[in-house]
Amino acid sequence: MLLSKLDQSDTRPVIPLGHGDPSAFPCFRTTQIAEDAIVDSIRSAKFNGYGPTVGILPARRAVAEYLSQDLPNKLSPDDVFLTLGCTQAIQTIVTVLTNPKANILLPKPGFPYYEAIAKSCQLEVRHFDLLPDKDWEVDLDSVNALADENTVAMVIINPGNPCGNVFTHQHLQKVAETAKKLGILVISDEVYDHIAFGKNPFVPMATFASITPIITLGSISKRWIVPGWRLGWLVINDPNGILKQHGIIDCITAYLNISSDAPTFIQGAAPDILAKTKEDFFLKIVNIIKEDANICIEGIQDIPGIICPSKPEGSMFVMVKLDLSVFEDIKDDVDFCVKLAKEESVIILPGISVGLNNWLRVTFAIEPSVLEEGIKRLKKFCQRHSKKP
Amino acid sequence: MLLSKLDQSDTRPVIPLGHGDPSAFPCFRTTQIAEDAIVDSIRSAKFNGYGPTVGILPARRAVAEYLSQDLPNKLSPDDVFLTLGCTQAIQTIVTVLTNPKANILLPKPGFPYYEAIAKSCQLEVRHFDLLPDKDWEVDLDSVNALADENTVAMVIINPGNPCGNVFTHQHLQKVAETAKKLGILVISDEVYDHIAFGKNPFVPMATFASITPIITLGSISKRWIVPGWRLGWLVINDPNGILKQHGIIDCITAYLNISSDAPTFIQGAAPDILAKTKEDFFLKIVNIIKEDANICIEGIQDIPGIICPSKPEGSMFVMVKLDLSVFEDIKDDVDFCVKLAKEESVIILPGISVGLNNWLRVTFAIEPSVLEEGIKRLKKFCQRHSKKP
Ligand SMILES: Cc1ncc(COP(=O)(O)O)c(C=O)c1O
Ligand SMILES: Cc1ncc(COP(=O)(O)O)c(C=O)c1O
Repeated sequence: MLLSKLDQSDTRPVIPLGHGDPSAFPCFRTTQIAEDAIVDSIRSAKFNGYGPTVGILPARRAVAEYLSQDLPNKLSPDDVFLTLGCTQAIQTIVTVLTNPKANILLPKPGFPYYEAIAKSCQLEVRHFDLLPDKDWEVDLDSVNALADENTVAMVIINPGNPCGNVFTHQHLQKVAETAKKLGILVISDEVYDHIAFGKNPFVPMATFASITPIITLGSISKRWIVPGWRLGWLVINDPNGILKQHGIIDCITAYLNISSDAPTFIQGAAPDILAKTKEDFFLKIVNIIKEDANICIEGIQDIPGIICPSKPEGSMFVMVKLDLSVFEDIKDDVDFCVKLAKEESVIILPGISVGLNNWLRVTFAIEPSVLEEGIKRLKKFCQRHSKKP
Repeated sequence: MLLSKLDQSDTRPVIPLGHGDPSAFPCFRTTQIAEDAIVDSIRSAKFNGYGPTVGILPARRAVAEYLSQDLPNKLSPDDVFLTLGCTQAIQTIVTVLTNPKANILLPKPGFPYYEAIAKSCQLEVRHFDLLPDKDWEVDLDSVNALADENTVAMVIINPGNPCGNVFTHQHLQKVAETAKKLGILVISDEVYDHIAFGKNPFVPMATFASITPIITLGSISKRWIVPGWRLGWLVINDPNGILKQHGIIDCITAYLNISSDAPTFIQGAAPDILAKTKEDFFLKIVNIIKEDANICIEGIQDIPGIICPSKPEGSMFVMVKLDLSVFEDIKDDVDFCVKLAKEESVIILPGISVGLNNWLRVTFAIEPSVLEEGIKRLKKFCQRHSKKP
């Protein structure tokens, strides 16, 4: 929609601060190790055929080993289901948990795909708040108040989209304890795993799997900057076997049996991608994103009418609040974003699309020099539209 | 299930006559042009990002051009939706056509995935017969009898799975006319397009799109022998704009918006794969399959208790009938296949799984020498289990 508002006569390049896909920028090119892994897999001609619908064993094992590095318990390949990016992992778990009376607790603000899938399954959604003044922690009181005997799960996204926050060890433990008390599952969307550059290290939710069952969703999309490769996973962290006992594992398998799989040769490349990628590639990427976050935050501090309640420490996003009283002629966040696209060829997502009216979600993971130019245009725009004294 | 019946102490190789995936056999290796296309796409680093949910334009255009070669009307890229193999194309169209009262007409015997998806959507299924004594043509009388005002579409599979038939031009025209009279859509599954080696050439159903709207489903899985690559399409052939008018196109787009896409770099390879593959590769593959079909049919003629009513002329399969009266101790088709797996390490699909009790579906597209061995074992098995005179 915003793209259609762009002024075609503006000769300046469009600055995309709207979506979490920096892959087009040369500084975000993926590691050659990942490209080589795909090429080797294709050239081997061993992965041209259909694979099992849950994923091929070497790929499942590779994901289990990759994730186990950060966990107290070792995962088994049987705990891992390969999916088409994190997207299909979300679709799978939401569909599987649906029943006529069930409801699911989703964060607000959040990632709108959860709502879209829940709607298509006719699964009732209830929103708990993330608290901007507490580093976007989960409002556990609202979780407690919303849950009832038909609540099947709560979703957290960590590192956060759209908030750019990284939950502390202590907070995640509280989430697990709350879920245990309520008798619900925690679905932890960790598609931005390890993209953390602030005071809190990334802690996988599965660390607390002995408290309550955790389903981890993830993919190589973000950490390897290859969202178009569509390789993801749904992982069962359930040392007490509660999900198995309730038949959830069988339902996941049955659902994947009638779903499309990640191409076999991409699965065939997974062991090399996951095991051989060097730490310095990850470090380079996180450092650029960190530099971006600083450019973004420092730039925004100077801009009238835009308030950042909480500095981003992970993922690729920050949520900022509009103070509409500052502006002369801006009705709301959508109006802001439409005018910004038209006048400055800068694309930013209105907060309403992630659940918060009159906020903006700024994606800062782009080439730093382009980001600087984007922030400059944003500032000019805000100054131009501010009330004159 | 059958695999679990194999006798582990049998040192002979298992002979897989059960599934349509010959990619593991060296003689069925895909063309290097296709492998190169993937490698070039990955190395270009241009296709690492998210693509549009309907597919990237160059890939849509390539499919439109590929299919238009055999059609009276030229397709436009807008008519083409890229999918994850033909599987996701089936899932998409069946889901989109579902409404609480609707029913869909499926062939019997057929491809069981249609039933599985219809069931998961709660779409009512009605089966029309394919006629073994008429080269497996559609029983149009049964189509007429089954359809009512809530029938949304009928599905044909051409070249046929599981029957190995190829419909004539005249028959397809009659199908189109019947559908027009009934006011229903024809979904034509052409995943085995051009795999025809008998008297009838392959004719795309879309040839008759001016009579009634046709949705063509296909993929590179079979003709290029790369089912693990998961690149397919759903194509609208509707010169009269009837589907658009009924909002079907918008529903397809909306459904694809919440589905996973084919990896962008595989889409990026599609133009080269579709346009550059040489005729002699296709010819080589079809010739091996034709040789296989002959081995299979000639072998089966000599086997007591197995009757082939109609010689295969396309795809990779033949349906043969069991004459249970010939056997001493075979209860039904499942019993036959279980014992065959156990005693001879040969896997064949019982007919019941494609809708015909006490038939077998034999997949013959494997390395010819292996097929010969498989048919030999099948013969030995049948002789051993025949009633003694
Ligand atoms: C929170 C969250 N979950 C899931 C996804 C989808 O990930 P993938 O590209 O691996 O399907 C995204 C993509 O932006 C995301 O932000
Ligand atoms: C009739 C038919 N349709 C569709 C498919 C699925 O095709 P794809 O592998 O492209 O998803 C098959 C696969 O065997 C098939 O036989």
